[in-house]
Amino acid sequence: MNSTEYQVDRRELQFVVNETLEAGKLCELPDFAEFDEEMFKMIINEASTFSEQVLAPLNENGDRQGCRIENGSVVTPDGFANAWKQLGEGGWLSMNMPPEYGGQGLPEVISIIGKETQLAANQSFTIGASLTSGAANLIYTFGSEEQKNDYCEKMFSGEWSGSMCLTEPQAGSAVGDVSTSATKQEDGHYLINGTKQFITNGDHDMADNIIHLLLARTTDAPEGTKGISLFIVPKVRLDGTQNDVTVLSIEHKMGINGSPTCLLSFGENADCKGYLLKAENIGMAQMFQMMNEARLLIGLQGLAGASAAVQNAWAYAKERTQGPSDIHPGEKAAIVEFPDVRRMLMQMKAVTEGLRALMYTTAWYTDMAHHGPEDSREKYHDLLDLHIPVCKAFGTDQGFDVARIGIQVLGGVGYTQDFPLEQNVRDQKIASIYEGTNGIQALDLVGRKFNTKKGQLLKVLEQELSWFDEHTPESELAGWVSEWENYRTVMLESIASLKKIGETQGKAGYVLYATNMLDLMGDVLCCFYLLKQAESAQKKWEPLLAGANSQEELLEENEEAQFYWNKLRTTEFYVWSVLPRALSNAKTIKNANLAPLNACL
Amino acid sequence: MNSTEYQVDRRELQFVVNETLEAGKLCELPDFAEFDEEMFKMIINEASTFSEQVLAPLNENGDRQGCRIENGSVVTPDGFANAWKQLGEGGWLSMNMPPEYGGQGLPEVISIIGKETQLAANQSFTIGASLTSGAANLIYTFGSEEQKNDYCEKMFSGEWSGSMCLTEPQAGSAVGDVSTSATKQEDGHYLINGTKQFITNGDHDMADNIIHLLLARTTDAPEGTKGISLFIVPKVRLDGTQNDVTVLSIEHKMGINGSPTCLLSFGENADCKGYLLKAENIGMAQMFQMMNEARLLIGLQGLAGASAAVQNAWAYAKERTQGPSDIHPGEKAAIVEFPDVRRMLMQMKAVTEGLRALMYTTAWYTDMAHHGPEDSREKYHDLLDLHIPVCKAFGTDQGFDVARIGIQVLGGVGYTQDFPLEQNVRDQKIASIYEGTNGIQALDLVGRKFNTKKGQLLKVLEQELSWFDEHTPESELAGWVSEWENYRTVMLESIASLKKIGETQGKAGYVLYATNMLDLMGDVLCCFYLLKQAESAQKKWEPLLAGANSQEELLEENEEAQFYWNKLRTTEFYVWSVLPRALSNAKTIKNANLAPLNACL
Repeated sequence: MNSTEYQVDRRELQFVVNETLEAGKLCELPDFAEFDEEMFKMIINEASTFSEQVLAPLNENGDRQGCRIENGSVVTPDGFANAWKQLGEGGWLSMNMPPEYGGQGLPEVISIIGKETQLAANQSFTIGASLTSGAANLIYTFGSEEQKNDYCEKMFSGEWSGSMCLTEPQAGSAVGDVSTSATKQEDGHYLINGTKQFITNGDHDMADNIIHLLLARTTDAPEGTKGISLFIVPKVRLDGTQNDVTVLSIEHKMGINGSPTCLLSFGENADCKGYLLKAENIGMAQMFQMMNEARLLIGLQGLAGASAAVQNAWAYAKERTQGPSDIHPGEKAAIVEFPDVRRMLMQMKAVTEGLRALMYTTAWYTDMAHHGPEDSREKYHDLLDLHIPVCKAFGTDQGFDVARIGIQVLGGVGYTQDFPLEQNVRDQKIASIYEGTNGIQALDLVGRKFNTKKGQLLKVLEQELSWFDEHTPESELAGWVSEWENYRTVMLESIASLKKIGETQGKAGYVLYATNMLDLMGDVLCCFYLLKQAESAQKKWEPLLAGANSQEELLEENEEAQFYWNKLRTTEFYVWSVLPRALSNAKTIKNANLAPLNACL
Repeated sequence: MNSTEYQVDRRELQFVVNETLEAGKLCELPDFAEFDEEMFKMIINEASTFSEQVLAPLNENGDRQGCRIENGSVVTPDGFANAWKQLGEGGWLSMNMPPEYGGQGLPEVISIIGKETQLAANQSFTIGASLTSGAANLIYTFGSEEQKNDYCEKMFSGEWSGSMCLTEPQAGSAVGDVSTSATKQEDGHYLINGTKQFITNGDHDMADNIIHLLLARTTDAPEGTKGISLFIVPKVRLDGTQNDVTVLSIEHKMGINGSPTCLLSFGENADCKGYLLKAENIGMAQMFQMMNEARLLIGLQGLAGASAAVQNAWAYAKERTQGPSDIHPGEKAAIVEFPDVRRMLMQMKAVTEGLRALMYTTAWYTDMAHHGPEDSREKYHDLLDLHIPVCKAFGTDQGFDVARIGIQVLGGVGYTQDFPLEQNVRDQKIASIYEGTNGIQALDLVGRKFNTKKGQLLKVLEQELSWFDEHTPESELAGWVSEWENYRTVMLESIASLKKIGETQGKAGYVLYATNMLDLMGDVLCCFYLLKQAESAQKKWEPLLAGANSQEELLEENEEAQFYWNKLRTTEFYVWSVLPRALSNAKTIKNANLAPLNACL
């Protein structure tokens, strides 16, 4: 651990992916038959090394130097272009992409390791990179053979990058208000005209070309979201000529300063060519199909920020001496010996590991939904759909809060730019906003997901959450599971009471406390997946303890024992000291106070 | 209201100070006999205008331009020096200072208006200014007649400024570790030698001189806090010669960039003269005597940040149109019409007004403790002592959170520097750290204040919290008070269970969840003082309603009615939608999980 740099906790990743989620078993599925657990272990190590050695060293300067426009083009911070090259060449851009265009074809639960560690090492660099994968994936999924051949390989390798052009100045969260126009030309392409705002990596100097995936309205398209189409708009056309795309400005932001957030103008000279992806008026549906992946990635930004923060804060608390503690009276003690500091660190650790348990399991659900046995795919798809808004919103809110606590652990120096915590907090703040604000995630959860297929998703979840019925918890775990089950009941009762409120108070009343519902669910799910981890940890811990002279001696000497012991303590803490937050959300939902709707505006 | 600038909510201040706390009645006390309520009303207006017109316009540039060192001296942002001059000349530095040296002698509950609005307008400017009052007050309280004559008037008027030099690089929260030395010279002064860190306004170009109040150890002083003495160390000595004080560097911080945070070296050339304040080895006690005022001020930074944030966010939500709402289907609606946005705004408003109710009442307790009838002074001092750590820690954590929600209301633009929210969040973050970290506040509350005078402070509080026994709440207020009383019980039970934990688990177990105890108390207190406000508001609202044709018409036309109606709705929201947080804290305290103490470090 290090208080100023990012170091990956390889042991934890190994435990989560291979010991708990048993990723090796995915290799029994035909689509992953070429892999095995040993390869996954190697990837954990290589992904960690790449993130630590290539991306982390650029993080601080990326923030301080930021991006700028020179001669109408965006210049990124020193070293970003070189890192981009290595990212592409190392295959990190295409870990989960299909092999036919040069992707690695890895499961999501492995690919997520690359994403988490890259984000933790350098949020502003990685957020931009991930959009290339997203854009390439859209072309791979909806493009013609010709389009796939033209773009996919170059985007998978990072030779070309991608951007997603959705937002417009007058249309933020309301994508249906998009007014950029696309006018069909005789030879089949479209002329694009409009302005797009908040376009991450909308222009930069890291790749040879930028492929914009852009939402626009064709002539006579229906109003709202039903009249939106998706276009490929390259910065440089395939024939090598410049397309009519102009960077008007870049945003000055609270954080992710290494990531250029562009205002782009398309068709200022009436010569911006766009190429339709599949068919007109299905743009929203196309975007929705990519949404789970994109939203999980933003959730990961929260986990990654939290993960870097807990490492930095924990290391600092062990380095920094100040005053005597009760453990070492009369001498200077490391601040990690003070109960309040330990409580903060434990809160950071428990929430971070809870988020990781949640998100890596969600990645595993993705694999099972797309590559698992046919007869279980729907089940995992249901779980995936229900988990995604929680990963995105709970993940980003909690990740931000963990980093905030990290500043507090450091104290005065945490507020300075001498330590990475303050940048971490600034970088993370965007994550609760983009890719659908967290409020929209909550509406998605209670409005859409709760009601999909007559509530089937919730039924599938309820079944999943009865896992401990068949895996009877033993010794201390039994008490924790039993306590957690009380909260599971609270969650189910809250869902029921939310429905009743909807019946009596209408839609506005139903969605008013959607955020509380999502947060409640986030805690119950994170704790559930941590408890499953604790069950694995306990099986490793108990034989170690049985073979030791004493617990004290074992914990003194044996790093493996320390790891499993701490996993148990972390889970215990989540159950007794974090989960109680669910009571607050449940009570608020139940109270269903309508003052926000009745106050004068 | 304005989404990019700060405007004071004069109506709210008027209500809190004059209608609820009845500040006018303080004028019946001999020390305030020269004032009356009309003057207080005028001061609300003038303080607001000064903050809006002089300080707010400098806020953004203060952040962007920041401070720098030129030729060994700190240069502050453009306009700060001029604003400082106006601050001093307008009497804003000495609102609560004694008239004999040019102060205004106003009650704290009036003086706090200046502080809140100045902080809300420009946190980095005001934080520095407040240290001058604090330093001057120390000299006024402990100085000899000569010292008072030499320094007070010039510091009250802002001609000279002050700084507080406590922290050293090796001694952060552990003030007892201070190692700066003070060696007595034959003519009575001391030679100071040492380095002080994180010194706000430790150097600047706004005043003619800087009077450092510095903690140091005299030769052969006892170890720890018992061997610390307080010295006056002027930058320029009274005879006009330069003292040996050097600015080594200024910090690069997350926020309050307009406030120079200095690393100062005293006595590099063995010629730094310091003048003892009163006596050796009583420095800590002297600092403690000023602590209540200083900590309330930092709590105010949270309230002020929240106050500016709620104004900006509310205004933006009314300006910004996007998509149709259920209220206006088929047309573009202001985002304030969306339930989730309204919930966020109401959360911001309720917490902000709750904090204001708490802090202004605490200011009023200060007045009563120092100037009230002799036989009630102890009671108010007890309440004051108990409230201060809550104001500081709960105020700054909640203030930060309110501004964070403000960014979320704005969405993407909230993350940019085009709106003041992101700076507000960055500026506020320091407040949970300095003047005793929030963890230290929690220890102060449960460790010191709960046990002072055999628990008398808690008994006095319990009595205060039975106010509604004699002011029977009517109509809708009755239900709210009854619900709040449940939480009051929860709070008292939590205090009892904390004591039991201390008995069985020792000191570390007792203080482990001190922060949860403080937060629980914060919610119960804020809600209590809001309920008292609601009682005032109800008395104004009901006659207005009785005289109107309909509630709808009344709320359409009458701004006074809107104000009282919203005060009632805000209180209602705190009871049913904010107060439930207390359940989470109570459960965590009761669970008393010791995992943080048992985990391997």
